[in-house]
Amino acid sequence: MNYFTEDTSEAAVLSRLDDGVDPRFREIMESMIKHLHGFIKDVEPTMDEWFQAVQFLTATGQICDDKRQEWILASDTLGVSMLVDAINHRRPDGATENTVLGPFHVDGAPERALGDSICLDGKGVRCVVRGTVADEQGNPISGAKVDVWQTNDDGFYDVQQPGQQPDMNMRGLFTTDENGRYEYITVKPLPYSIPTDGPVGDMLVAMGRHAMRPAHIHYIVQAPGYETLVTHIFVKGDPYLHSDAVFGVKESLIVEFHEIVDGMRADFEVKLKAL
Amino acid sequence: MNYFTEDTSEAAVLSRLDDGVDPRFREIMESMIKHLHGFIKDVEPTMDEWFQAVQFLTATGQICDDKRQEWILASDTLGVSMLVDAINHRRPDGATENTVLGPFHVDGAPERALGDSICLDGKGVRCVVRGTVADEQGNPISGAKVDVWQTNDDGFYDVQQPGQQPDMNMRGLFTTDENGRYEYITVKPLPYSIPTDGPVGDMLVAMGRHAMRPAHIHYIVQAPGYETLVTHIFVKGDPYLHSDAVFGVKESLIVEFHEIVDGMRADFEVKLKAL
Repeated sequence: MNYFTEDTSEAAVLSRLDDGVDPRFREIMESMIKHLHGFIKDVEPTMDEWFQAVQFLTATGQICDDKRQEWILASDTLGVSMLVDAINHRRPDGATENTVLGPFHVDGAPERALGDSICLDGKGVRCVVRGTVADEQGNPISGAKVDVWQTNDDGFYDVQQPGQQPDMNMRGLFTTDENGRYEYITVKPLPYSIPTDGPVGDMLVAMGRHAMRPAHIHYIVQAPGYETLVTHIFVKGDPYLHSDAVFGVKESLIVEFHEIVDGMRADFEVKLKAL
Repeated sequence: MNYFTEDTSEAAVLSRLDDGVDPRFREIMESMIKHLHGFIKDVEPTMDEWFQAVQFLTATGQICDDKRQEWILASDTLGVSMLVDAINHRRPDGATENTVLGPFHVDGAPERALGDSICLDGKGVRCVVRGTVADEQGNPISGAKVDVWQTNDDGFYDVQQPGQQPDMNMRGLFTTDENGRYEYITVKPLPYSIPTDGPVGDMLVAMGRHAMRPAHIHYIVQAPGYETLVTHIFVKGDPYLHSDAVFGVKESLIVEFHEIVDGMRADFEVKLKAL
């Protein structure tokens, strides 16, 4: 075996993958090593630039804790999360489109009755959201679980403000009725900024990008026999729809929020893909 | 501007780089984004695999502290450190070849007289190392600084064993005499393992690779008017020369350690490239 040289760097590293390595791990590592060396050869980093990269990678891990996941934020802001989501959830026309889960979902949201409010802090513009969960052919699915969550009127999720917001504020788990219908009360969501006080925030500044997400409500919709749908609804007219910091917007997920007498109303029809 | 799709994912992310971005930063980010999306599209990770990657990236930062730099270890074991070193130190034939610095250099090693020992713990096979520092044409350079460091006979650097080894054990800074000569006493270096108790160790296991480095002594050689040389000398016959965990070995850096009456002797001639 030859020693490492600039010209043969990839081959030198690839040759170390043992014959007995798990085939899928091999496939991933081979592609990663090729792209990694290709990237280095493209840009020819100085020693200083290499060390800045080491510092970025290190700091991005070090700011993580049980509430903060900066690497998911990095994945989100570089379009990787959306790409992985797209690859894993190719859906036929007719099924509702998916988008990223995001880091603020909480398991065990409170089960609520149809028509209940998820807003426990009383702040914001009252809004009723309603719709149907159906299959691809439009046949309603009763007993589907609709898990929704969003920021409060200050632009924060409850888990970002422990002690400042009621526990499980702006979260609820609803079950569709015999006609596949769901309905809940919330407040009109607002655009908000992803966290910018870490390495990813610095990266966005260096790229000349803002950190805003357009207003949205998160959904997970599940029913036996159907693919679980992870998605958002976005508010039509939001100024950040075309520049979502995490690339989450899809045209079909933009919903009109109509003015009504005592607030707003939005309709979101869900069509699940059969398993 | 169009919304993100699987097909146009790179373009969606690249389009967010603002016109005013620093051109070098743009060049690096454009290549990085292309290779990152290319890698994801090549391997089509499952959601689980993506999350395993997030966990690896996070853990690799979190194990770092002021003594431990797991990201440099990751860079080393994937051949990136050697590649960046090669790109930054292309040298003409005739000049001594460079290799990686490694994470265990310490600024401020004690200045010692020629012929002094760097071994403060008295363990190991006594070894004299000597040679000349010269220019590419072989003209000796007097007053050159030769900074050397290595593991002790237990296979650890002093900074890995604070309190267990004498401070500055196995480190010394020598100055060449009027004939460009240097000479110091040390002990014959031994192969040793890089740290394996972190994510990089797990990665090596998954790749079916060992974590050993062949025996070596580190050098930094500096003289005014010449490129600083960062290199190692390796022990001829070492079993790990062809499988160095960090890819650091170059043929020209392998040196014979001869048996002599009271131990070993090795010669290492250095030729510096003029600035």
